[in-house]
Amino acid sequence: MKLEQIETPAALIDVARMQKNIARMQAHMNTLGVAFRPHVKTTKCIDVVRAQLAAGARGITVSTLKEAEAFFAAGIGDILYAVSMVPSKLPRALALRRQGCDLKLVVDNPNAAAAIAAFGDQHGETFEVWIEVDTDGHRSGIQPEQDTLLEVGRILHENGVKVGGVMTHAGSSYELNTAEALAALAEQERAGCVRAAQRLREAGIACPVVSVGSTPTALAAQQLEGVTEVRAGVYVLFDLVMHNVGVCTLDDIALSVLATVIGHQEDKGWAILDAGWMALSRDRGTSRQSHDFGYGQPCLLNGTLLADYVVSGANQEHGILSAAQANVKANTTAGTSADDITQRFPIGMKLRILPNHACATGAQFPEYHAVAPDGSSAEWKRFYGW
Amino acid sequence: MKLEQIETPAALIDVARMQKNIARMQAHMNTLGVAFRPHVKTTKCIDVVRAQLAAGARGITVSTLKEAEAFFAAGIGDILYAVSMVPSKLPRALALRRQGCDLKLVVDNPNAAAAIAAFGDQHGETFEVWIEVDTDGHRSGIQPEQDTLLEVGRILHENGVKVGGVMTHAGSSYELNTAEALAALAEQERAGCVRAAQRLREAGIACPVVSVGSTPTALAAQQLEGVTEVRAGVYVLFDLVMHNVGVCTLDDIALSVLATVIGHQEDKGWAILDAGWMALSRDRGTSRQSHDFGYGQPCLLNGTLLADYVVSGANQEHGILSAAQANVKANTTAGTSADDITQRFPIGMKLRILPNHACATGAQFPEYHAVAPDGSSAEWKRFYGW
Repeated sequence: MKLEQIETPAALIDVARMQKNIARMQAHMNTLGVAFRPHVKTTKCIDVVRAQLAAGARGITVSTLKEAEAFFAAGIGDILYAVSMVPSKLPRALALRRQGCDLKLVVDNPNAAAAIAAFGDQHGETFEVWIEVDTDGHRSGIQPEQDTLLEVGRILHENGVKVGGVMTHAGSSYELNTAEALAALAEQERAGCVRAAQRLREAGIACPVVSVGSTPTALAAQQLEGVTEVRAGVYVLFDLVMHNVGVCTLDDIALSVLATVIGHQEDKGWAILDAGWMALSRDRGTSRQSHDFGYGQPCLLNGTLLADYVVSGANQEHGILSAAQANVKANTTAGTSADDITQRFPIGMKLRILPNHACATGAQFPEYHAVAPDGSSAEWKRFYGW
Repeated sequence: MKLEQIETPAALIDVARMQKNIARMQAHMNTLGVAFRPHVKTTKCIDVVRAQLAAGARGITVSTLKEAEAFFAAGIGDILYAVSMVPSKLPRALALRRQGCDLKLVVDNPNAAAAIAAFGDQHGETFEVWIEVDTDGHRSGIQPEQDTLLEVGRILHENGVKVGGVMTHAGSSYELNTAEALAALAEQERAGCVRAAQRLREAGIACPVVSVGSTPTALAAQQLEGVTEVRAGVYVLFDLVMHNVGVCTLDDIALSVLATVIGHQEDKGWAILDAGWMALSRDRGTSRQSHDFGYGQPCLLNGTLLADYVVSGANQEHGILSAAQANVKANTTAGTSADDITQRFPIGMKLRILPNHACATGAQFPEYHAVAPDGSSAEWKRFYGW
């Protein structure tokens, strides 16, 4: 199907850009001498993940057990479920392991560790668990010097659970925007996770894997001594938030939302699009960054940026395109003549909108349209839910 | 299935609250003497819509052609597609009408009106079109006194298209929070739409339907002279935004997200939940209102509000529950002792989170769990996409 024939709104993946992003990350990992385990929560799409594995990725990271089940069914066995395990989810994890899935679990507290050990004992299953380490204070995990780290390690190790490694995610990297700050956080992430592994090993607990990563720190890392693997997700498509963080250009962004102009408010300088927040997502991640892109950056079908315009507002199925100099937060605009808006964006015209956050925007669609350089496209299914 | 057995995160509908909300709206419409056409974009769930129709609703409003196709397939024929039509979507509309669906289209500009007329002529189909009227300047539509109104009316009327009515949506009602302001906007919405119908009729164009509505203005309307029907969507479930607008209590909110405590950061006073923004949605609608509920209001499983706590931050699959007095925007918190957070919210504990915006949160889930007063639940499918 050609781009012009795709019904709107639709999620497009520029395959050439995606392949370039995959190659860039894999080459950097190869240079640093570490394995790469992509986080598939960004796309939940087997076609994308196959491209990541074909480029050299080893195993995948998932954010839900549904992802684990779907990708295992698609033939991928080496899976890290990177959200703290709780007892109620153990039966699904057990079922996956019983089918032959090499599923690794994550914990950051003694209660969950004890529950995994007890459940494994009860069912005769040796679970593999990685301990989550907190290296930047933004979310979950045990700090490298906390007593809890060894407590959790011992509960697992002494009760028949394999301590497969330690893992951390310096998600606060999304709040940075200089190469220096990113490199410093990458080093902090590395050092903290390596230190946690060292403490476990000194306590007699084998800890073969040291897994770190977020897209910004992965790309900013200059050396990864002691690290065995890196994880990252959004790098495969990139988005406007990552542009503001400084780890990609606008031309690297491989995801866009195809939209149609369905109306105008000439006196306000608005063109109305059929892509509202249901298509673009409610993610306004760039609102806290140096360049606020509203609900997205419009481009022509061929990818040419329309830097003077922005999607300044959104209802469920309506987006408002207006001049970029307007205050996108107040959703009031001016400075674009009526002639300009109706002539430049006539009814039926199609545009591509670069999104704030590829993980959030992709999740709104049952499928991607993967667009080849010749303009033809293929449908790539994605899934959702838990 | 009992509430305790449902895997998390999950979207729950409290059926008793939903039925109360449906009855309240329908009773108000009956008192005002108008038909009621619910907007099904909120739930995209046939079980919910059947309850709305059983209570007296006549026909439905949809925001996508996929909704029209799905609900027509489920036996509902009277459907208003309430987003401006564009030529590229006419083949799907034609297919629905050819199957017997009484699908009504909406336009607000001459180009789209002419395109519908030409397409109908080409295919021998008499489309029914309602003209969208702008009564509050928030989005689409033609202002009642604009010349364009009659221009569009004539293009349709003189070229074989049935002008079925006028419709408006005073969506700026979401920005109000007093009964007086809501009643005034409801009257403005009514008067503007009735005036548009009057002008069309004076020009010799029959305009049988006058359709108005948004949840706040529908509930605030004191008289609807000249109006034939009202539309509203979110009233069926309500949410925290509607609570802040002042049209429901927290106890009316019928949608919640079931979540499990999966960890803690004791020094920060955080409990970590397995409901992040993928489950709660990125909608932060209450951030611009009088009471900012962060990513949602936690409750116990039995519905008891935990007013001292809030979901103050969210990653894709992680939510941060912390004390409500904290600044939820900065996502920093204090004032909750470590003992309190780990003892009050132990690992594995389940909570219900009331959402900012029921339309956005529901859309993240493939199904609702409809919870009966006895605590048992049934799975109600919902769909997404376009």
